[in-house]
Amino acid sequence: MPPDNLPAAINFRDLPQMSLEEMGNLAGGLRREIIEVVSRNGGHLAPSLGVVELTVAMLNVFDPGKDRIVWDVGHQAYAYKILTSRRSRFHTLRTMGGVSGFPKMSESPYDHFGVGHSSTSISAALGMAMGRDLNADSSKVLAVIGDGSMTAGLAFEGLNQAGDMGRDLIVVLNDNEMSISRNVGALSSFLSRNLSARWLKKFKRETENFFKQLPGIGTDIADYMRKSESSFKSFFTPGMLFEAFRFNYIGPIDGHDISDLVDVFDHVKRLEGPNLVHVLTRKGKGYEPAESNPTYFHGVGCFEPETGLAKKFTVDGCPEIPSYTEVFGDTLANLAGKDSSVIAITAAMPEGTGLSKFADAYPERFVDVGICEQHAVTFAAGLATQGYKPVVAIYSTFLQRSYDQIVHDVCLQKLPVIFCLDRAGLVGEDGPTHHGAYDIAYLRHIPEMVMMAPKDEAELQSMLATALELGRPVAIRYPRGLGVGAKLTDQPQPVPVGEGELIREGTDAMVIALGSRVYPALEGAAALEAEGLDVGVFNTRFVKPLPIQQILELAAKCPRLVIAEEHTRMGGFASAVLESLADADALSGLTIRRVALPDSFVEHGTQKELRAAVGVDKTGIMNAVRELCGRDVQQTVE
Amino acid sequence: MPPDNLPAAINFRDLPQMSLEEMGNLAGGLRREIIEVVSRNGGHLAPSLGVVELTVAMLNVFDPGKDRIVWDVGHQAYAYKILTSRRSRFHTLRTMGGVSGFPKMSESPYDHFGVGHSSTSISAALGMAMGRDLNADSSKVLAVIGDGSMTAGLAFEGLNQAGDMGRDLIVVLNDNEMSISRNVGALSSFLSRNLSARWLKKFKRETENFFKQLPGIGTDIADYMRKSESSFKSFFTPGMLFEAFRFNYIGPIDGHDISDLVDVFDHVKRLEGPNLVHVLTRKGKGYEPAESNPTYFHGVGCFEPETGLAKKFTVDGCPEIPSYTEVFGDTLANLAGKDSSVIAITAAMPEGTGLSKFADAYPERFVDVGICEQHAVTFAAGLATQGYKPVVAIYSTFLQRSYDQIVHDVCLQKLPVIFCLDRAGLVGEDGPTHHGAYDIAYLRHIPEMVMMAPKDEAELQSMLATALELGRPVAIRYPRGLGVGAKLTDQPQPVPVGEGELIREGTDAMVIALGSRVYPALEGAAALEAEGLDVGVFNTRFVKPLPIQQILELAAKCPRLVIAEEHTRMGGFASAVLESLADADALSGLTIRRVALPDSFVEHGTQKELRAAVGVDKTGIMNAVRELCGRDVQQTVE
Repeated sequence: MPPDNLPAAINFRDLPQMSLEEMGNLAGGLRREIIEVVSRNGGHLAPSLGVVELTVAMLNVFDPGKDRIVWDVGHQAYAYKILTSRRSRFHTLRTMGGVSGFPKMSESPYDHFGVGHSSTSISAALGMAMGRDLNADSSKVLAVIGDGSMTAGLAFEGLNQAGDMGRDLIVVLNDNEMSISRNVGALSSFLSRNLSARWLKKFKRETENFFKQLPGIGTDIADYMRKSESSFKSFFTPGMLFEAFRFNYIGPIDGHDISDLVDVFDHVKRLEGPNLVHVLTRKGKGYEPAESNPTYFHGVGCFEPETGLAKKFTVDGCPEIPSYTEVFGDTLANLAGKDSSVIAITAAMPEGTGLSKFADAYPERFVDVGICEQHAVTFAAGLATQGYKPVVAIYSTFLQRSYDQIVHDVCLQKLPVIFCLDRAGLVGEDGPTHHGAYDIAYLRHIPEMVMMAPKDEAELQSMLATALELGRPVAIRYPRGLGVGAKLTDQPQPVPVGEGELIREGTDAMVIALGSRVYPALEGAAALEAEGLDVGVFNTRFVKPLPIQQILELAAKCPRLVIAEEHTRMGGFASAVLESLADADALSGLTIRRVALPDSFVEHGTQKELRAAVGVDKTGIMNAVRELCGRDVQQTVE
Repeated sequence: MPPDNLPAAINFRDLPQMSLEEMGNLAGGLRREIIEVVSRNGGHLAPSLGVVELTVAMLNVFDPGKDRIVWDVGHQAYAYKILTSRRSRFHTLRTMGGVSGFPKMSESPYDHFGVGHSSTSISAALGMAMGRDLNADSSKVLAVIGDGSMTAGLAFEGLNQAGDMGRDLIVVLNDNEMSISRNVGALSSFLSRNLSARWLKKFKRETENFFKQLPGIGTDIADYMRKSESSFKSFFTPGMLFEAFRFNYIGPIDGHDISDLVDVFDHVKRLEGPNLVHVLTRKGKGYEPAESNPTYFHGVGCFEPETGLAKKFTVDGCPEIPSYTEVFGDTLANLAGKDSSVIAITAAMPEGTGLSKFADAYPERFVDVGICEQHAVTFAAGLATQGYKPVVAIYSTFLQRSYDQIVHDVCLQKLPVIFCLDRAGLVGEDGPTHHGAYDIAYLRHIPEMVMMAPKDEAELQSMLATALELGRPVAIRYPRGLGVGAKLTDQPQPVPVGEGELIREGTDAMVIALGSRVYPALEGAAALEAEGLDVGVFNTRFVKPLPIQQILELAAKCPRLVIAEEHTRMGGFASAVLESLADADALSGLTIRRVALPDSFVEHGTQKELRAAVGVDKTGIMNAVRELCGRDVQQTVE
């Protein structure tokens, strides 16, 4: 095999016959292929580069046609995808209809479990192990989990039961001392072997006391121990923690040494019971720009492979439009300067949620809890009891994990915690595990909750100001991506609670639009003028409390309503409107079309492609109006 | 103070002046009061009896007017309630309008955080500690958490960050070696000091290797250690685990020795940083029936205080009607006998969910994961990938904690996991933290999900049979309490998916009823005959897929619809009906009344009282019909 090329038909079945040198060359080829494709398509580069040797070694020893491998989160599985029959399609990574950016059972029989959210792997693998044992099958089950994912409660729950059950299970701890940003938590520093002085002191004291009791020689030993602090550091390994959970601990192992890895996996394969293999890797390994900036290259857009520099895009001729994320971060930092009770909380994503600026400006009021969305919310509730205004910034899809805490710890107790849900609606290339398609369904029904969605980035500013004044639980959902170019302000003013705004009058049909669907509705209404249709647009702003008086007045004037939202059609915004119309005895005479996401999981693709495919874009809204008004539906190309 | 009486005005402010003997007497008086009230009102007896001395000692040292105490779960807080200004009202425990069975911020300024679900205390307390530090206040914050609650991921997340943050925080680990049933998991056996042979062996080997390197005397020590296995058990304390999380560990302490407890708390009060006090208690302490059967007396109905025997009730003259829980457990065990792929999973509640019989009959197919609802679901997903049919039995309110796992690990992957949601609807005396009021809102919108609700216990049997045949994600919700006395079968037959049944024809109004509201609707319809109203009742059975064709036909014949459900009115069953009617352009001419729970948290009381208070009982349904039909609404007394 030439050292620079990745064979077109390379497959995991070739690996057991390869020499170490050939596997090393293969790792180089995989790296180049991954860098090349991600530089074009965007993707999770640094995590995938970090586990190339680990993947090659695992597939040398284990057979994914028989054994089961569960990748935690899954954004590190690109080499695995290439080696499990997706070599020829890998260039389609993250494009519509192409290879998914995450393991996905429907994509390949070698993807043994679908992932995207963090920390599910040990639990899923343990379930598989029990199934395997009931089936009296002799295959191996592996969970590959990063040290960042290990901080989430779900991983702990899985580890705790796996140790108790004692079934054959191999947990590969991929320890790169970070997840997306710097890792958080006591466990993390324990893993990174920076044992605290206090810990060492206590350990020494207990050990000394123990040895002092020994006949004759104990005191000498105790004296010796008092002098040799460094010995303890090597003696008290992270392994002892996992041993406490009844795992057999093997490691730490250099995760870039294929020879060592193959030896260890060969050995572990013959062991029974729960085994944990601790592998040390470097995120971004083998690509200098990613090694030196692994946070940026965790998930990245298109870049120049030679330099690592981002490709410049001009979006709709407006390169200077900021993203919703940036506007959120800047505005919150600004408002926090005027209100010292504002506290910002992220779950391991200070950059992704836009909070880095806040963190720099107000470090004492910024908390990164790690990948612990549940804890983030209950912790915020505790803060709120002491008179603070915690702002919990978590992507819509990841906040799903805090649902119970939002009900039980925040809303039931009427605590003023503010939830800022970035990436609400379709997120694009990350696909079905990441779309923020359900937040209205899982938040609106909770008593005490106020829920809003801004039509643009300026309204996001106003809604943040509103939320900070309300003194009750509030959720604000806003989409991934750039704003619309609205004029921003340093003095955002609150919007009246429960009031929407009629932006455009209309007599033939009225679009009741929410959040990201307001501008497409306006554009659609303008375009429909050419067809002789007079279409109004109402920006509802509030999912709860719903501006029902305004909607009733609009419906009384114009009984043809299109309700438009970027959320699943089951239990979403339209349901809220329908409930209120029914309760007001205002259904009669109405005809309604709902523009919303389908009751199915939406796949990956660009946001534009996906919105068109499921009919929630301008064309979808126009067609809904046409249908209501008895016109022919058209497949307008935007 | 006479040894047998609890002073009428006893308060935590009296404690610092008390002698040890007086505190001992007080503990006795508290115990008698708790036993007496719980024997009449029902409640969480064993947990509260176990922490009487702990509560007295804490309130001797800490001031709940200044310091903050967060009780995890909160079902052990009865003595605390009595001592914090609720002595005179304690006899109203769990009755409508009376003292809540759980700490509740709106009830008392001494209830610093509301609880009911498990494992929130460390996170909430840590938030409070940060708020206290920002406020530059010198008070203490305590979290009191059981060893069972400690197994949940949320507790781990809190512990992990608390150790990292280093703020002043006291975690009191109330270790009674059980939660509700026997505890589960590696952590649990670590706490209970039954260190595994393997663990000891490994520890010895590593220690030996370490000492062998020491100059001169190492080998002798190693030899000595090899012989003294018991020394390790005392040497390697559970404390080391918490030390790994950077907590200062104090314990274990006898949780029934007030003197020791006061000394320790006095000491801990002067310490800074995160401290963990490990207290050993006995569940049910001081009441022999509860000590010998702590699982039964965990949460208990009325009983004879002298004997501990349950009081016999005759419910509506039908003492032999089984509960939904029993019918579920018996039927699942029966069906599992015919289908070896059925696996039952509980999260620490084998008795509460009715699975004890299954566990006895098929121990190899029964899994208790501990208080780990998230892990339960992802573990089930893993099992389902291997061809099994996991049945996850979790109360509606506790399944809230698995919402993300249901979306991401089960439904997105189209895995046939069956969710059996006991306690759906109003649960009664446990109140707002425990009502199953949101499951339709948090489950119906998930793609791939099938959701049903049986009208009675026989239909529950059929729905279980249906679910096991479907091969996809299914949720069945059923209420707390007794069935209606329907005839049961050993051969339950599936119901057709997406089909309801018209039980009673009617021309004046049609009640579209779900689950527990079908029988009250039938009774209401029968009673309305006397008022000359001809009212039909449709048992919808399926929330998803909705029997929309049948509903459309009914609506076409009778345009006055009452939609009745025992679920919040936001995003519930009625919303599903409205969505489908709107999509079918069938709204015109309809008038609709919704009978559902209010958009507010419903308090505690008996189920009957609460259903009447919020208007979802027979009377509520009758009034909705009367309103629709232009009749006067009446306050019928049932």
